Amino acid sequence: MRSRLNWSVSTVQLTMHMDELIILCRSPVLTKAVPMSRERSKLEGTNVKVENVPVLLDRHNTQYSTKGGSMASGQLSREEALACVGCRHACHILLYADTEAQLFEEIPIRHIVLMQMRFDGLLGFPGGLVDPSEESLEEGLSRELWEELGFSLSVTVEDHVSSCHNPSSSSSHLITHFYSRRMEEKEIREVEKAAASTATDHGHEVMGMVRVPLYTLKGGGGGLPSFLSHSFIGNSRSQLEDALVRFGLVTPEELQTALTHAEQMRKQP
Amino acid sequence: MRSRLNWSVSTVQLTMHMDELIILCRSPVLTKAVPMSRERSKLEGTNVKVENVPVLLDRHNTQYSTKGGSMASGQLSREEALACVGCRHACHILLYADTEAQLFEEIPIRHIVLMQMRFDGLLGFPGGLVDPSEESLEEGLSRELWEELGFSLSVTVEDHVSSCHNPSSSSSHLITHFYSRRMEEKEIREVEKAAASTATDHGHEVMGMVRVPLYTLKGGGGGLPSFLSHSFIGNSRSQLEDALVRFGLVTPEELQTALTHAEQMRKQP
Repeated sequence: MRSRLNWSVSTVQLTMHMDELIILCRSPVLTKAVPMSRERSKLEGTNVKVENVPVLLDRHNTQYSTKGGSMASGQLSREEALACVGCRHACHILLYADTEAQLFEEIPIRHIVLMQMRFDGLLGFPGGLVDPSEESLEEGLSRELWEELGFSLSVTVEDHVSSCHNPSSSSSHLITHFYSRRMEEKEIREVEKAAASTATDHGHEVMGMVRVPLYTLKGGGGGLPSFLSHSFIGNSRSQLEDALVRFGLVTPEELQTALTHAEQMRKQP
Repeated sequence: MRSRLNWSVSTVQLTMHMDELIILCRSPVLTKAVPMSRERSKLEGTNVKVENVPVLLDRHNTQYSTKGGSMASGQLSREEALACVGCRHACHILLYADTEAQLFEEIPIRHIVLMQMRFDGLLGFPGGLVDPSEESLEEGLSRELWEELGFSLSVTVEDHVSSCHNPSSSSSHLITHFYSRRMEEKEIREVEKAAASTATDHGHEVMGMVRVPLYTLKGGGGGLPSFLSHSFIGNSRSQLEDALVRFGLVTPEELQTALTHAEQMRKQP
């Protein structure tokens, strides 16, 4: 159902979701480089939607020096990433599904998105380090998933979403590769069962799988805002934020509201 | 193996753990009321250990007016709590086990402690609201556990740890009752499996079970400190902190160091 086109140009990312092209614009960097209004007017009347996600998506997206790469924002193509000499590579995946379930029989849950509590007490996505001289990025990620989820999932290049220099690990030249796979609800449930029963890493490198609530409860704080106020490893929070909008799981407005609440919660004693 | 004596006097809590009596002193309130050094000197040479846990255990332990109760710190006995007119009651439980497992084959994991990611995106303990006019607190908690964990666990008064007015819900007169049950490691694993497979609340009121890392990784931030930097519901973080020291799962010094790191992490952008 979903075809995906990844085209990274400086700070713009284009994603084909169903029949709609979604453009994620990472301002304020973008607004300096390309007049936003001109780009937007060009696309009016087409199947293209321009989502301007100001500042918030830039929070974890620090500027980097472009050693061997052409990207200014830390984003780079899979090929550019693999050409990086002396870089380490970490691959993670977002597994998600649609659901008709309702919370308290009235709040639509809409989508199931999986993350995990890691051994280091932080939230992150399943996956881990991969050495491209020994295996492909996708083979390595599949291996990690088998260990962490106890579930066999063959990851392919088609699942690749983005690659970027990791903000929190600039000294070690770590490149994080992000993948996604849309599954059926019953498959997601199988993953959760296996992760708590047959996965060799359960209780060791993984402390448990959790679903990400995508709704916001009355009062404005409960649900996605609370979830985003937790502590995450590396750039996994920005990977989550990007993906939620990219795949249409929440709107940019919902995300921005949630992030504002989350920021307030972080500041509370 | 473990006998427990709960005696709450204003801001002091006494706990009998194995053959040792542990006194948790919640300063600075305590130091104003009772000269700490005099109390400590009385106990020297006995099987009694005085643990002064300054400030940090007081963080969520706000002073309350004592409507119908005799306690100044929000703590009250199970009987006092049940005598409270117009109060609502919430019961939660800490399930824990010892383990010989090691992380990366070198870091002792020591104990497994279960918490859950809730529907509201916050971390908390299994349990929920109980109406004492319809069922006992323990029957109600057992019912909630069946729904949330898909695991039959008969909770008794012996498992009761503490009751207190909930700081975050003073307007609704909510009293939170905290229980604990030490289990075998294999039982904890059965709970985790059931929670992800047969529990009716999985994917609705519960987004997943997680273990609490009790170690601290090299560098000082990873493990318990990171975990404590997350967002928790109501007074569940202070229930966790109390219980970790009360049952000897971490030392007061380990907890204090972890909380200092956690506080720093919360302040990071």
